[in-house]
Amino acid sequence: MARMEKAKKVNRPRVVVVGGGFSGLAVVHALRKTEAEVVLVDRQNHHLFQPLLYQVATAALSPGNIAAPIRRIFSRQDNCSVIMSEVTDVDLEGRRVTLPDRTLPYDYLVLAAGVRTNYFGNPGWVEFAPGLKTIDEAIAVRGRFLLAFEQAELEGDLEARQAVLTFAIVGAGPTGVEMAGAMAEISRQTLRRDYRHFDPQSARVILIDFADRVLPTFPPDLSRRAHRDLESLGVEVRLDTRVIDVGPGGLTVARGGDEQCIAAGNIIWAAGVRAVDLAERVGTPTDSAGRLEVGDDLTVPGHPEVFVAGDLAHRIDPALGRPVPGVAPAAMQMGRFVGRTLAAELQAKAAGSPVPARPAFVYREKGDLATIGRNRAVANIRGLRFGGVFAFLLWAFVHVLFLVDFRRKFSTFLEWIWMYFFYERGVRLITGEGRTPRPKRPGHDDSVTIRPDRTYRGS
Amino acid sequence: MARMEKAKKVNRPRVVVVGGGFSGLAVVHALRKTEAEVVLVDRQNHHLFQPLLYQVATAALSPGNIAAPIRRIFSRQDNCSVIMSEVTDVDLEGRRVTLPDRTLPYDYLVLAAGVRTNYFGNPGWVEFAPGLKTIDEAIAVRGRFLLAFEQAELEGDLEARQAVLTFAIVGAGPTGVEMAGAMAEISRQTLRRDYRHFDPQSARVILIDFADRVLPTFPPDLSRRAHRDLESLGVEVRLDTRVIDVGPGGLTVARGGDEQCIAAGNIIWAAGVRAVDLAERVGTPTDSAGRLEVGDDLTVPGHPEVFVAGDLAHRIDPALGRPVPGVAPAAMQMGRFVGRTLAAELQAKAAGSPVPARPAFVYREKGDLATIGRNRAVANIRGLRFGGVFAFLLWAFVHVLFLVDFRRKFSTFLEWIWMYFFYERGVRLITGEGRTPRPKRPGHDDSVTIRPDRTYRGS
Repeated sequence: MARMEKAKKVNRPRVVVVGGGFSGLAVVHALRKTEAEVVLVDRQNHHLFQPLLYQVATAALSPGNIAAPIRRIFSRQDNCSVIMSEVTDVDLEGRRVTLPDRTLPYDYLVLAAGVRTNYFGNPGWVEFAPGLKTIDEAIAVRGRFLLAFEQAELEGDLEARQAVLTFAIVGAGPTGVEMAGAMAEISRQTLRRDYRHFDPQSARVILIDFADRVLPTFPPDLSRRAHRDLESLGVEVRLDTRVIDVGPGGLTVARGGDEQCIAAGNIIWAAGVRAVDLAERVGTPTDSAGRLEVGDDLTVPGHPEVFVAGDLAHRIDPALGRPVPGVAPAAMQMGRFVGRTLAAELQAKAAGSPVPARPAFVYREKGDLATIGRNRAVANIRGLRFGGVFAFLLWAFVHVLFLVDFRRKFSTFLEWIWMYFFYERGVRLITGEGRTPRPKRPGHDDSVTIRPDRTYRGS
Repeated sequence: MARMEKAKKVNRPRVVVVGGGFSGLAVVHALRKTEAEVVLVDRQNHHLFQPLLYQVATAALSPGNIAAPIRRIFSRQDNCSVIMSEVTDVDLEGRRVTLPDRTLPYDYLVLAAGVRTNYFGNPGWVEFAPGLKTIDEAIAVRGRFLLAFEQAELEGDLEARQAVLTFAIVGAGPTGVEMAGAMAEISRQTLRRDYRHFDPQSARVILIDFADRVLPTFPPDLSRRAHRDLESLGVEVRLDTRVIDVGPGGLTVARGGDEQCIAAGNIIWAAGVRAVDLAERVGTPTDSAGRLEVGDDLTVPGHPEVFVAGDLAHRIDPALGRPVPGVAPAAMQMGRFVGRTLAAELQAKAAGSPVPARPAFVYREKGDLATIGRNRAVANIRGLRFGGVFAFLLWAFVHVLFLVDFRRKFSTFLEWIWMYFFYERGVRLITGEGRTPRPKRPGHDDSVTIRPDRTYRGS
């Protein structure tokens, strides 16, 4: 009660932070010693460690290993209150955001609401090719992936069984590569002894990208290494390949002039991201993916009180000559930058000193890591490029290191040790929406739209 | 492949086991050295350690801690195949069971499909008062419980906030007592510092039962002890109280001639069980809860090839003079009994020796344990009755001991250690169906049907 009264006693500047991802948390944390009243709004009650979400989708980790209640993280930061709600609109002139049941005035606004899966103008594809952004999506992907093997055990028709056991992953960035590697490992190793009527190794994992190499943001030699690693796990890699259609029975792809249908029981969409819908309500310039363009101080043009941080920001880095990438370290850096900028201004104002000039955000590249599977990973750390066991261990170390708290670091570490030594994944559960197979359009005849891919014989 | 061919080579007797709970697993395990072809059918892909499901619903454990894929459990038992499907009908004369897409002939049938939540003729109540039988239900209960506190943080009207923060648990058996104790602990301890606009300790947890004491299957002195423990945690215990109606705004209860409406945002139904629907398709005599009556050898009358084990069996124990209780140890014992009986017969037949006479099932009572909260539990072990810390530790020890495998024992043990020393629950996530508040009937005006309970002032 004491805390609540204290919170109301003065007319403190209010900072509204939209989004409890890496950058939102960093902003709030940096404001902990200020007099600001901080309000963090998120649609979920939990912060999600996105880089490991694919491990929930592939039965290695539980949601509880990688997600933590936001209000717990700030339970001892008395100047922060957390609201589980959704910001549906922003009124820049009136300096307030709209929630379903109220408006929330602000003195400073930090938009850190991130991105969502991008279907590039085909919103209907979401039904057949889920993305991987929330825990519920990961649980559904996990369930449908495992359900495919259960269906295969009961399926007598060989062609139908092969279609059920075909997993197409669209997008060969880190998430797509990690998903493909994990799905191949599960079918080749984890499930090896578990079925009686078919061989789980007959599952096909197909990784599709329009680019000419996997991990296109990595140096070409690491792309080649990752490509080799994927193929050694049994993943079919299809590059220079565009997805033309996605439907209930599979997908149609084109390479050069050749179109081909692939009968696939499961499709995962990891092909791109787009700003959350809120971004277009702001009304300031955006890039082609809807991200908000920001200046050197990460504010939108004409509104020095409105910051954008994390994946939602489109910021051309002067040193890189291209946008700051949408990766966790960049989001953390932006959040910290915004929080510190605000803290300095608020402290100056409170002390009656002149407000310092805004610094410019400088992105420090930490390097890139992607894992393909057991002992298989690639790393590009400040020009040092390597793969294999050492990159794999570095990847695991860094990811455990950045997990929210000790409890989650420890439990994730243990799950990984277990998986590494016993080749078993601890969370092979079919629950949630994953209990129902991928929806089929009613009355839709698979065999007409999607011709089973009889010609393809592996790469 | 070798395994699959071996499985087909001879005309082996087929044992179909319906249900992968405690008894189903015990049956399959006992048949591991026989020549039988064992087919285990379950609607879920996982065995669920039911006694700890309430800990998933109260954010202490992840589903992965207490559920394990059934086919993994038997991956090295070559004579067992596992089917994830549902048995919808039984043809005793034709000796086959019906699945949605096929029929499955059997030589021996073991029905171990268990029970479901019993709404005593009010099936519509399930919408407003979920039971606790599956992982998805537990996730939904957990989400809605935590969501209530999120809603309270945003609710300015005091009366509406109190209704949101009122949790009614119907049924004061072990599950209801454990749920009530955990919910009270969460609101008094775990969430203590996490909200800014209300005090989580103002949450009301009400435990309702028609019986005149909590834990009615325990000796009266332990009931009194549990009652005291519940009240010391802040649970309101209402005995001799019947639930008359359940609706979107709360529930109506009656004690003696007095009716009262309780505005409650969350209702949990732990008031009773009823046999799964499959039981009535069998066509042999059942008790009032639909359980199948069985003879000394746990078979249904007239069909020595059809066994019933676990909660689905109604077996009057000669020593007790009442039915064998629906608890995990009884299910394990029945499963083991059925499996061993079958194994002996199959081995005798294979050896050409005379088939031994069927033994009679004898239930060995192991005792009863129920936990109310931290350091609070009651135990009744062969006449030895005690409560407090020692009962609590014994409860924890026994439950970890019986968890499926070492991995789950170890991870659950760690979660408990953490919870015990840090007063924190690791899985405070609002996901799945728990993201949506308990459904309200469209156009239904809460204030008319359910009058807020203005008269009640605690016990």
